[in-house]
Amino acid sequence: MPDFEKTKRTTLKRLHDRGRFDRETVYAILDEALICHVGIVVDGAPVVIPTAFWRDADTLYLHGSSASRLIRALEAGAEACVTVSLLDGLVMARSAFHHSFNYRSVVIFGRTEAVEDAAEKRRALRLFMERLAPGRWEELRPATDQEIKGTGVVRLGLAEASAKIRTGPPIDDEEDYEDPVWAGVVPVSLACGAAQPDPRLTPGITEPANIPGPGPFKAGA
Amino acid sequence: MPDFEKTKRTTLKRLHDRGRFDRETVYAILDEALICHVGIVVDGAPVVIPTAFWRDADTLYLHGSSASRLIRALEAGAEACVTVSLLDGLVMARSAFHHSFNYRSVVIFGRTEAVEDAAEKRRALRLFMERLAPGRWEELRPATDQEIKGTGVVRLGLAEASAKIRTGPPIDDEEDYEDPVWAGVVPVSLACGAAQPDPRLTPGITEPANIPGPGPFKAGA
Repeated sequence: MPDFEKTKRTTLKRLHDRGRFDRETVYAILDEALICHVGIVVDGAPVVIPTAFWRDADTLYLHGSSASRLIRALEAGAEACVTVSLLDGLVMARSAFHHSFNYRSVVIFGRTEAVEDAAEKRRALRLFMERLAPGRWEELRPATDQEIKGTGVVRLGLAEASAKIRTGPPIDDEEDYEDPVWAGVVPVSLACGAAQPDPRLTPGITEPANIPGPGPFKAGA
Repeated sequence: MPDFEKTKRTTLKRLHDRGRFDRETVYAILDEALICHVGIVVDGAPVVIPTAFWRDADTLYLHGSSASRLIRALEAGAEACVTVSLLDGLVMARSAFHHSFNYRSVVIFGRTEAVEDAAEKRRALRLFMERLAPGRWEELRPATDQEIKGTGVVRLGLAEASAKIRTGPPIDDEEDYEDPVWAGVVPVSLACGAAQPDPRLTPGITEPANIPGPGPFKAGA
């Protein structure tokens, strides 16, 4: 797969070694994350909203109520910036200055586009469910036309996309390594816990295998 | 403490019951989170960047290299939107339509301002270290004037701020509750793991008690 093309705004001005433009890296970050932060410009000012997302090849999907201000702006073809971040660790260095976080992030710039066709909307929404719990779409009653109509789905092409990554131990000034202070990394991760059945669950229904289990979230696992 | 004043853009147009304007709720979300997503407008287009932040009363602080494009824009007094999100659960409902996420988020609008005074910068940076590892600032060699100069620190007043929260089990259509499908919540949380000592750690230095331990991150704990 070819790399994403670098543009002025996806090229890092500093810390060039943290930049990544290969699709494997960008895809892996997007597929591990559960939420993104979408930025749009409203009346000249920035607005950043957290929301769910999913990916199909080089297309990112977002959805929400057709009545939501964000979804309406995105359906109208807003210029957007979608950012996805995974925090991996607290980097405790030997000087305050070299403290850092380990992380993996993706930034995507582009104009969103409404998914208008009801069948394509259904297909996209089903992909989202597959990501969360493979096979669950078929276990549920079919989505009604009214529900599909009430759900706004937008796509954003992965064209102007890039990743930024920091990993590893602190990088201290050479003369600080002998300081009598502890240094290292505190790993941080997002994990699922044991599922909590709905208090109104019909007695006798047990948790199926496709519900994400305790541990790191694995899309479609 | 008085609530934050509602403004046009912090008032929810839908799902009003998810909105919160009390300081206790906003503070608690900000103090639990480790990163925020900062939105600014560059050449008319939105840019969203993940970064660390910390809070002191009604002031939010951000920092970064004085050479970073984001920090330069924020120091110049950019109109910003800072969003903080905590994902709490995957809500598996009896219809695709009612699937949701449990989350707590805060959105802050305002103009950032450079912290110019070196002593105030030091004080702010020390507060950030206190949040991560109380007492560590004193254990490290003092930050040099050059390091303070090379670090851009900006403040954003908590004035136009609000929180949005979803908790609890799925809310299904009444007629779906008898469907023979599992429903419930998969809890999700960010947690620290066991600290990994720097491979170059001087032998004999043990991990001090102020390094965050395994489990949920507790600021300044």
